Amino acid sequence: MMYGSIEAGGTKFVCAVADESLEIIDRVSFPTTTPEETMELVIQFFKGYQDKLEGIGIGSFGPIDIHRNSPTYGFITSTPKLLWQNFDFVGTMKKHFSLPIAWTTDVNAAAYGEYAFGKGKGLSSVVYYTIGTGVGGGAIQEGRFVEGFSHPEMGHMMVVPHKNDSFTGNCPFHGNCLEGMTAGPAIEKRTGKKGQDISPDDELWDMLAYYIAQCAYNTTLMLSPDVIIFGGGVMKQRHMLKKVHQAFEDLMQSYVKTPDLTNYIVTPELEDNAGTIGCLALAKEAKIHL
Amino acid sequence: MMYGSIEAGGTKFVCAVADESLEIIDRVSFPTTTPEETMELVIQFFKGYQDKLEGIGIGSFGPIDIHRNSPTYGFITSTPKLLWQNFDFVGTMKKHFSLPIAWTTDVNAAAYGEYAFGKGKGLSSVVYYTIGTGVGGGAIQEGRFVEGFSHPEMGHMMVVPHKNDSFTGNCPFHGNCLEGMTAGPAIEKRTGKKGQDISPDDELWDMLAYYIAQCAYNTTLMLSPDVIIFGGGVMKQRHMLKKVHQAFEDLMQSYVKTPDLTNYIVTPELEDNAGTIGCLALAKEAKIHL
Repeated sequence: MMYGSIEAGGTKFVCAVADESLEIIDRVSFPTTTPEETMELVIQFFKGYQDKLEGIGIGSFGPIDIHRNSPTYGFITSTPKLLWQNFDFVGTMKKHFSLPIAWTTDVNAAAYGEYAFGKGKGLSSVVYYTIGTGVGGGAIQEGRFVEGFSHPEMGHMMVVPHKNDSFTGNCPFHGNCLEGMTAGPAIEKRTGKKGQDISPDDELWDMLAYYIAQCAYNTTLMLSPDVIIFGGGVMKQRHMLKKVHQAFEDLMQSYVKTPDLTNYIVTPELEDNAGTIGCLALAKEAKIHL
Repeated sequence: MMYGSIEAGGTKFVCAVADESLEIIDRVSFPTTTPEETMELVIQFFKGYQDKLEGIGIGSFGPIDIHRNSPTYGFITSTPKLLWQNFDFVGTMKKHFSLPIAWTTDVNAAAYGEYAFGKGKGLSSVVYYTIGTGVGGGAIQEGRFVEGFSHPEMGHMMVVPHKNDSFTGNCPFHGNCLEGMTAGPAIEKRTGKKGQDISPDDELWDMLAYYIAQCAYNTTLMLSPDVIIFGGGVMKQRHMLKKVHQAFEDLMQSYVKTPDLTNYIVTPELEDNAGTIGCLALAKEAKIHL
């Protein structure tokens, strides 16, 4: 028995198959081009395992339609990637594979990976953010994604500008929202450099920590989760987590008694595998709940 | 068969009993003084219906302990109302009534009322805020409260100051958080007047609408609920809802396609009864799930 995973990102797709214990057996990656070209490669990859596959989990860039009763369930909807607008992702897979298909956002899938096998294991309520090319977030409570009329878009929450930060933000919709201030392109536009080329002493990191701490603060007040996990490139800077903890304490002023910060605001255990592991776990779930 | 309701507010308690269809039969109200004095009146009221009561729902001011496995489950915990700190509310009721007791925050109870019988009826995900003496919020997804290490404290989310608002905020913890800028005491401190004495043309209302719209904006991005309900005194100003809709649209910039705003950002259907109805509905649920 095997499970399949599709991490469908805006710049690349990662497909994998794993055995019953979700050990990865094979994995491929290719750039996101047109739906025709990209899906041809996806289908080709999984055809090689067709006889053994029991389910496929998809974590897709969005926005996507998650409502099972909707006529466009399984579609990528109003994405700025025009070629992929209104693309019937789940339908395309169903045409080629008669299998249970789990369908969620890329960041929800990563959240599920950490919930099932990472820093969220055994906890009731888990929130996961990725701060990279963009900023996204997903939340799970007792095994279910937090959602309603659609999936969340946590990366665009409002943040209060840092007193020394004159950057007006990079988000085409909101300017200085969380993504507009902290994502990779915002760092490059602000400094002319990539994050990895900026000294750990630069005040930029204090500014980013202030914004990320606001995100953790608002998340705490809105969801009171058991853990908040920050993945993505920015948090790979080893000095960041401590700065975020400090900025969070300064904001919270002990108003809410959270779990100890070293266990509450954390980086991912599965690192960059969270998405693939999450898709596989969702594929296994999809089979069970068919 | 009857159900009991206790809305335990920081300034007053409202107790009620209702029949099987949750029609209210009797209701009393008294000021919140000491636990001994106040609870004596609560117990006395319900003793009159003891033979018929099937369950009691409590919506309490907080913070409260909601974890069933915790030794302090059912306690009011670190409230600034010193006399009520570490008060065993559920335990006190259990000593006098051998009944299922539902236990949640006051604002969660009101959220549940609207979810079960008001603007959230039939919807999957409902968020309710009250903007009054304080600001609080509660969220329900598929019948369950959104919670984790504790219940949410949504009223203290960060907001970006309005460009013409020089008020530095009234929250002893966070200064200009949502509560610090929009609650009744913040209005009085800013203007020297009560809300009902301020002209609908005053720019104050635009500032408040801007903050409340930020709350709705962040709520949309974090939870994507099916409806956001704003109760409490400030939203009783008839001109406010339209202002909030406009400010929300300005912030969102069509980034997320929400349901139509007239059905998405709304005032409560049950008005000031949401809390009592919610407690009654939770009491009925508690009996079923015993």
